[in-house]
Amino acid sequence: MTAKIAVIGAGSWGTALANLLAENGNQVKIYARDAEVVDSINEENYNFKYFSGYKLNKNLKASNDLEACLENVEVIVISVPTSALKTVLNDAGALIDQDTIIVSTAKGIDEKSFKTNSEMIKEFGFQNVVVLSGPTHAEEVMEKLPTAIVSAAESKENAEKVQDLFMSKYFRVYTNPDVKGVELGGALKNVIAVASGICDGLNYGDNTRAALITRALNEMSHFINYHGAKTMTLSGLSGMGDLVVTCTSMHSRNRRFGIEIGKGKTLVEAKNKVKQVVEGVKTAKAIYKWLNSKNRELEMPITKEVYQVLFEDKDPEQAVEELMLRSKKHEMESVVDNSLWNI
Amino acid sequence: MTAKIAVIGAGSWGTALANLLAENGNQVKIYARDAEVVDSINEENYNFKYFSGYKLNKNLKASNDLEACLENVEVIVISVPTSALKTVLNDAGALIDQDTIIVSTAKGIDEKSFKTNSEMIKEFGFQNVVVLSGPTHAEEVMEKLPTAIVSAAESKENAEKVQDLFMSKYFRVYTNPDVKGVELGGALKNVIAVASGICDGLNYGDNTRAALITRALNEMSHFINYHGAKTMTLSGLSGMGDLVVTCTSMHSRNRRFGIEIGKGKTLVEAKNKVKQVVEGVKTAKAIYKWLNSKNRELEMPITKEVYQVLFEDKDPEQAVEELMLRSKKHEMESVVDNSLWNI
Repeated sequence: MTAKIAVIGAGSWGTALANLLAENGNQVKIYARDAEVVDSINEENYNFKYFSGYKLNKNLKASNDLEACLENVEVIVISVPTSALKTVLNDAGALIDQDTIIVSTAKGIDEKSFKTNSEMIKEFGFQNVVVLSGPTHAEEVMEKLPTAIVSAAESKENAEKVQDLFMSKYFRVYTNPDVKGVELGGALKNVIAVASGICDGLNYGDNTRAALITRALNEMSHFINYHGAKTMTLSGLSGMGDLVVTCTSMHSRNRRFGIEIGKGKTLVEAKNKVKQVVEGVKTAKAIYKWLNSKNRELEMPITKEVYQVLFEDKDPEQAVEELMLRSKKHEMESVVDNSLWNI
Repeated sequence: MTAKIAVIGAGSWGTALANLLAENGNQVKIYARDAEVVDSINEENYNFKYFSGYKLNKNLKASNDLEACLENVEVIVISVPTSALKTVLNDAGALIDQDTIIVSTAKGIDEKSFKTNSEMIKEFGFQNVVVLSGPTHAEEVMEKLPTAIVSAAESKENAEKVQDLFMSKYFRVYTNPDVKGVELGGALKNVIAVASGICDGLNYGDNTRAALITRALNEMSHFINYHGAKTMTLSGLSGMGDLVVTCTSMHSRNRRFGIEIGKGKTLVEAKNKVKQVVEGVKTAKAIYKWLNSKNRELEMPITKEVYQVLFEDKDPEQAVEELMLRSKKHEMESVVDNSLWNI
C-alpha cells in the first residue's frame, strides 16, 4: 500500500521520515519554510541543514508553498516542535479535509494543561490522529539501522494504515491503542534523562543508571495512571525503549545538560553549554508545580529532586542520597496488586 | 537491626556483599576455600583475587572451615555459581538449621528442569529462602556507588529482614513477593545480552539496542508467564533494570561474547576470546530445545534467532532482518488486555 503524503517540517526527524516514506514508494512532498532547503532537496537530493552526508530518495520533493504541499493528500505527517504546533495548525487547518489522517511525531506536552500533541490536533477538528513515537535517532534511520517504533491511535484501522506506510526492513512498526500513554511516556522521559546526566556528571556507574531508569518508570506510571492512560504502555518502545536511549546516548541534549549540572554548573551555565532547548527542565518544573498546586500525593521523588537541584540550588549528591534513604519500599507499590502477599 | 551472618563464596559478588553487611554493623564470616584468600582477608583486609584495590571492612572475617563459618548464624548468603549450588548444599546442608534464612544471590537456572536456585535450595529442606537480584556490578558496590536491588521471598517477613540487613545509603533494597519472576528475569537476560552484543558487533546503533531490549522484555514475559511468575516483575530491577545494565555495559561477558559473534567469529573463537563461562549460550540452547520439544507455541523470536546464529551458522545480519520483517504486530500482543480496542 502506498499513499500521497505531505510531511510538514524539514528538521532532522521530518526529513528522515519523509525519506523513509519515499523509499517505501509513497508520493511524498515535504514542506520547508527555508527556500534554500527546498532547493537543496529538489535539485541535489539532500537537506544541507541536517543530513549533508546522506542522499535523499530522488522521489522526495520539497516545497515552501504549504497549500501546494497539502493538495489532495491522504496523510499528513506533522514534524514540528510542540511549541510550534498551534501555529502550524492555524496556518494549515483550513487547507486540510477534516477526515485526513494526521500523524503526530513531536514529543512534548503543553506545560500548563498537560495536553498532548494529539489532543491539541483534535481540538482543531481532526479526529483521525495517529501518534508515532519510540526510541529513534533520526541519524540512525537515515543510516538504515534497524529501528522500531509505535503507531498509536484510537482507531485500529488508522494505526494499521500508518504501520503499513512506514514499515520496512529496517523500520519496524508496532500498533498500540493507548495514545495518551504513548505521548506522555515520550514527554516524561526527558526529566529522567536530565537525572541520568546528573548521575553521570557525579561519576556514578551502571548500577546507578539502571536503578534510576527502573525506578523512573515506576514514578512515570503514577503520573500516567492519574491521567487515565495505561501504565503497561510504559513497558513498550515509547516508554522504556525511549527512556533507555535517552538515558544512555550522547545524542540526548537533556542528558548532556544533566551532565553539566552534575559537574557543578548552574542552570544557566549548563543551558549555555548545550545551546538548545532542554525540554526536561520545563517538564520537571511543570510537573513539580502541578504536584504542589493541590498537594497531589503522587509519588514522583526523582522528578521532585531534579526540580530542587535545578531551581532550589540543592546539592545533587545530597539529592541522590535522599532518594537512596527514602522509607523502605515494596518494588511495585501502588502499581500491581501484590496478591502473592495478599497486601 | 544486625545479625550473625555467613557468606558462602568469596568471589567478587560474595566479597562485595559480605563487605557491605560488615559495613552495616553485622557480624559476618565469609567462607573461602582458598587459604591464601582467607589469609589476605583476615590479615590485610583485602581479597587479593578480586578487589586488590579496595580495603575491606576490618570486622569482616574469613575462614576455610565451613562448619565454623556456619555456627550459630541466623542468615546464610550463598554466593556460588548455579552449577556449584548442589555441591555446596550437600556439604553444608547438614550443618544448617532448617529454619535459617538462606539468601540466594546467583543468577541462573538448571538447564534441564528450568528450576531456579531458590527451588533447588528448597529441595534441600530450607523454606526461608530469599532471593537477592538486580542490576549490580560488584565493583560498583565496592566503590559505594548508588545501587538498587530486589529482595524477593514467599514470606514478606523474610524479604523485609533481608532488606533491613543490606540497606544502606548507597545500597537501596526493594521487596518483591514474586520469587520465580525475579529469578527467571536474571537468567533470561543473558540470552538478550548476547543478542545485544551481536548487534553491536554488526555496528548497529542506539535505536536497535533500545528496540531489542524492549522487545526482549516482551518475549521474556511469555516465558515467565508460562512458568507461573508475574510478568509485571520484569518491569522492575531484576528484569528491565538488569537487562539494561547487561546490554549496555562492557562488564558483561555475555555481551562481549556477542560482539565477537557479530564481527563474524565462530562460537569457539568467541568463547576463547572471552575466556569465561557465557551463561547466555547455555540458556539460549536450553530454551530453544524446550520450545521445540513439544512444539510449544510461545513467541520467543529473539531467543530463536540467537540459537540459530550460534548453533546453525545463520548469518547474524539475516537474523536481524528476519526479526524486522516478521508479521506486523500489536505492541502488547498477548501481554495486556487490549481493552481500548476491544481486541
